[in-house]
Amino acid sequence: MNHIPVAIIGAGPAGLTLAHLLHLQGIESIVFEKRTRKEVEETVRAGILEQGTLNLMRETGVGARMEAEADHDEAIDISINGERIRIPLTEITGHKVAIYPQHEYLKDFIAKRLEDGGELLFSTTVDAVEGTGGTGGFDNDKVKVVYTEADGSSTTISADYVIAADGSSSPYRKIITEGSGVRVRHEYPYAWFGILVEAAKTQKELIYATHPEGFALISTRTDTVQRYYLQCDPNDTPDMWSDDRIWEQLHLRADSPGITVSEGKIFDKAVLRFRSAVTEPMQKGRLFLAGDAAHTVPPTGAKGLNLAVADVSVLAPGLVRALKKKDSALLDDYTKLALPRVWKAQHFSYWMSSMLHAVPDEDYFATQRRFAELHSVLGSEAGQRYIAEQYVGRDLPRFEV
Amino acid sequence: MNHIPVAIIGAGPAGLTLAHLLHLQGIESIVFEKRTRKEVEETVRAGILEQGTLNLMRETGVGARMEAEADHDEAIDISINGERIRIPLTEITGHKVAIYPQHEYLKDFIAKRLEDGGELLFSTTVDAVEGTGGTGGFDNDKVKVVYTEADGSSTTISADYVIAADGSSSPYRKIITEGSGVRVRHEYPYAWFGILVEAAKTQKELIYATHPEGFALISTRTDTVQRYYLQCDPNDTPDMWSDDRIWEQLHLRADSPGITVSEGKIFDKAVLRFRSAVTEPMQKGRLFLAGDAAHTVPPTGAKGLNLAVADVSVLAPGLVRALKKKDSALLDDYTKLALPRVWKAQHFSYWMSSMLHAVPDEDYFATQRRFAELHSVLGSEAGQRYIAEQYVGRDLPRFEV
Ligand SMILES: Cc1cc2nc3c(=O)[nH]c(=O)nc-3n(C[C@H](O)[C@H](O)[C@H](O)COP(=O)(O)OP(=O)(O)OC[C@H]3O[C@@H](n4cnc5c(N)ncnc54)[C@H](O)[C@@H]3O)c2cc1C
Ligand SMILES: Cc1cc2nc3c(=O)[nH]c(=O)nc-3n(C[C@H](O)[C@H](O)[C@H](O)COP(=O)(O)OP(=O)(O)OC[C@H]3O[C@@H](n4cnc5c(N)ncnc54)[C@H](O)[C@@H]3O)c2cc1C
Repeated sequence: MNHIPVAIIGAGPAGLTLAHLLHLQGIESIVFEKRTRKEVEETVRAGILEQGTLNLMRETGVGARMEAEADHDEAIDISINGERIRIPLTEITGHKVAIYPQHEYLKDFIAKRLEDGGELLFSTTVDAVEGTGGTGGFDNDKVKVVYTEADGSSTTISADYVIAADGSSSPYRKIITEGSGVRVRHEYPYAWFGILVEAAKTQKELIYATHPEGFALISTRTDTVQRYYLQCDPNDTPDMWSDDRIWEQLHLRADSPGITVSEGKIFDKAVLRFRSAVTEPMQKGRLFLAGDAAHTVPPTGAKGLNLAVADVSVLAPGLVRALKKKDSALLDDYTKLALPRVWKAQHFSYWMSSMLHAVPDEDYFATQRRFAELHSVLGSEAGQRYIAEQYVGRDLPRFEV
Repeated sequence: MNHIPVAIIGAGPAGLTLAHLLHLQGIESIVFEKRTRKEVEETVRAGILEQGTLNLMRETGVGARMEAEADHDEAIDISINGERIRIPLTEITGHKVAIYPQHEYLKDFIAKRLEDGGELLFSTTVDAVEGTGGTGGFDNDKVKVVYTEADGSSTTISADYVIAADGSSSPYRKIITEGSGVRVRHEYPYAWFGILVEAAKTQKELIYATHPEGFALISTRTDTVQRYYLQCDPNDTPDMWSDDRIWEQLHLRADSPGITVSEGKIFDKAVLRFRSAVTEPMQKGRLFLAGDAAHTVPPTGAKGLNLAVADVSVLAPGLVRALKKKDSALLDDYTKLALPRVWKAQHFSYWMSSMLHAVPDEDYFATQRRFAELHSVLGSEAGQRYIAEQYVGRDLPRFEV
C-alpha cells in the first residue's frame, strides 16, 4: 500500500490552498477531486477576496494574475430605500477587497500545483476513509483512504493525516460528530435569485441595496457581464422570475439618485440557498475538516472562500510541525484556534443578512428598525469602521513552523 | 374660560423638562399631574442619564444635586458566560454616564418649577382634550383642556398648544393616529425580574451579564442598597422567584473571575415588561405627544427618560418660536426632527436586548452567534466605540429660539 503524509479530499479553495502551503514547507500531499479539471475551473461561486486571502496569494507566489486582472475595490455602497451611503473601505482600513471569481482563484492554484509537480487527481472520488486504530478509531498511526479513479479502478493508500476538504455535503464530518461532537444549523427565510447579464457595469463598486420588499446586490463580473442578485423565497424556481419582474424589482430595490441598474440580456438564472452550519469539533485523531466541509455561511458576508483559507492557515503549520518536528500541539489546538473566526464569520454573515433582507411579511416596526440600524451603523464613523473592518477581513492566523 | 399658552399633561421627565425649558424662554405653562407629589417623587423607574441629559440639567440650572450625588461612571462591564470585558466609556467618548434615579431627576425639576413660581397641579387629572376647529379638529386656534382636581371640581381652560406627556398609556395618541397615523409595537419573549437588596455594591460599575440561561444586570443604587435584574418570562410573577432561586441565577449568570454578586436582604421584587412602541406622527395641529406617550423602549438600552428629554428639546424651541415669533416651521417639523432619534433608540434597545438575552429554548447556534457578536463588537476598537457612543448618547438637538 502506498503511503502519503497528507491526503486531501477535494480541490476547492480549502484543499488546493492547503496542498500549496504544505508544499512550500516540503510536505507532500495528494489532492483527490471527483470532478474534472474543466468542471472545477468553470463552476461560478464566490467572488470577494479578503485582504488576508489576497496577502496569502501574493506571499506564496500565486497572486500575479489576481493582481493584474481582479477588480480592486476601495468602497462599497449601501442603498437604504433609495438613499445611497458609501463605505470607503480603503480610506477606513487601508485595505482593498478584490473581486476575483472563485474559479479564477482555483485556476491559479491548480496551475501552481501542477507546475510544482504536486499530485492532484481529477475525476477521482474518495469512497471511504478508515481509521486503523484497534477499534477502527482515528487516534492511531495511520488512516486508510479508498478512492476510485476515472477508469473505475479502486485503490487504497495510507496517510498520516486525512483532510476532508470536500465541501458542504462532506460525509466525513459524521465520523467526527459521532459520539461527542455537534453539527448545528440555521435556516433563513429567504434565498438569492442570481442572474448573469450582458450589460455594462451599473457602477464600479458593489451596491448592497435594501428596500421594504427586500434585498438586491449589484455586483460586477467583467466590463460586459454583470452579476445581480435579488432576495427571493427559498422555494422560488427560476421560471417564477420573468425578465420583466427581475428588472422591475432590481430598479425598485437598487436604483437611487444618479444610479440606474444597467439592463441587458439575461443569460443565467439560479436560486442560491441560505444556510448557516457549524461542526464542532473540526477534528478527530488524524482526520480534520476544513472549509465548507466543516461550516457553511450564507453568501451575504462573502466569507465562504475566505474562511476556508483561514482554516488551512492554521491546519498547514499544524501539519508541518507534526510531521517535521513530531510536535502535534498546534494540530491538537486546530479547532480551538479556528472556531472563533468561524463563529465571527457566522455572525457577520447573519448580521449583514438580517440588516439587509426583509423577512417575509415583515411588519413596519421590523423595517423601520432595520433602517434605523443601517443609519446608526453607517451614520457613525465608528459604525462604518466596525463594518468595514469585518468586510475587508482580518489578517490570517500566522504560526511559525 | 382661563387661557394658558401651553398645557402639559403629566409631570414625568417629558412634562417637567418641557415646562422648565419653556419658562427659561418666558413661556408660561401649566403642568397637570394626576398623582400626588409624594407618589411622583417616590416611584422608582429609570436610572441612567445620557450626557446630553446631564448637560441640559447643568446648563439650565437643575444639575447641582445630580453633580454632587449621582454616581458618575466611566465604564461598564459586559460579562459573557463568565468572561468579563470592560468598555471604558469615558476613555472612548470623553463622556461619563450618571446613575441618578428618575425620581431624583423629577424631585429636582419639581423643586425648580415651584421655586420659579410655575403652575404645577398635582392630584389633578386631565379628562379630555378637545379641538375647537369647525369639525372638532386640532388645526384651529385653541384647544380646550378639561381637568378634575383633588377636591373633585372640574374645570375647562383653553390653551394655544397641548402637550400629552402622560406616559405609555396616553389616550391622546388615538386622536393623532385616527385617520392617517400609525401605532407600531414589538413584543419581546422576555421580561426583567427586578429586586432591591440591602447589600454592598458588587462593584462600582454596572455589569451587563449574559449566559446561555439568560441575562442579568448588576446595577447600583446607594452604598447599602443595590438593584439587580434577571431575565425572566413575561408571565412570571414575583412569587415564582424564591430568594434561593434568585441568588443561584444571579451567581450563575453574573459572577466572573474576581467578581461575586453581593448578597443581602431582598426587600422588593417586581416584574418589568419589555415592549417597543412608536407612534407616527407625534403631532396633529395643536396637539403634540412627548416621551412615553409617543414611544416606549425596552429598558436594556436605558434610553426611556433620555428620549423624553430629547423630544422636548425639539418641542420647546418649536413652541417658543411659534408663540413668540408666530413662526411654526420648527413645530411643524417636530415629528420629522424627533423620529430618527426615536428609531435609533428603538434599534439600540432592541440590539442590546437581543445580544444579551437568551430567547426561550434558544438553540446552540443562536447562543454561539450571540456570543460571537459580543466578541466581535467588544473585541474591536471600532465596535467598542460604536457601542460606547450610543450608550453615553449623543448631544441633544439644539435650536436657536
Ligand atoms: C452557488 C454558490 C455561490 C457562492 N457564492 C459565494 C459568495 O459569493 N461568497 C462567498 O464567500 N462564498 C460563496 N459561496 C461559498 C464558497 O464558494 C464556499 O465557501 C467555498 O467553495 C468553500 O471551499 P471548500 O474548498 O471548502 O469547498 P468546495 O469549494 O465545495 O470544494 C470541495 C471540493 O471537493 C470535491 N469533492 C467532494 N466530495 C469528494 C469526494 N468524495 N472525492 C473527491 N472530491 C470530492 C468537490 O467536487 C469540490 O470540488 C458560494 C457557494 C455556492 C455553492
Ligand atoms: C418600572 C419601570 C422601569 C423603568 N426603567 C427604565 C430604565 O432603567 N431606563 C430607562 O431609560 N427607562 C426606564 N423606564 C422608562 C422611563 O421611566 C420612561 O421612559 C420615562 O418615565 C418617560 O417619561 P415620560 O415623562 O414620557 O412619562 P412618565 O414618566 O410615564 O410620566 C407621565 C406622567 O403623566 C401622568 N399622567 C398620566 N395620565 C394623566 C392624566 N390624564 N392627567 C394628569 N396626569 C397624567 C402620570 O401620572 C405620570 O406621572 C422604566 C419604566 C418603568 C415603568
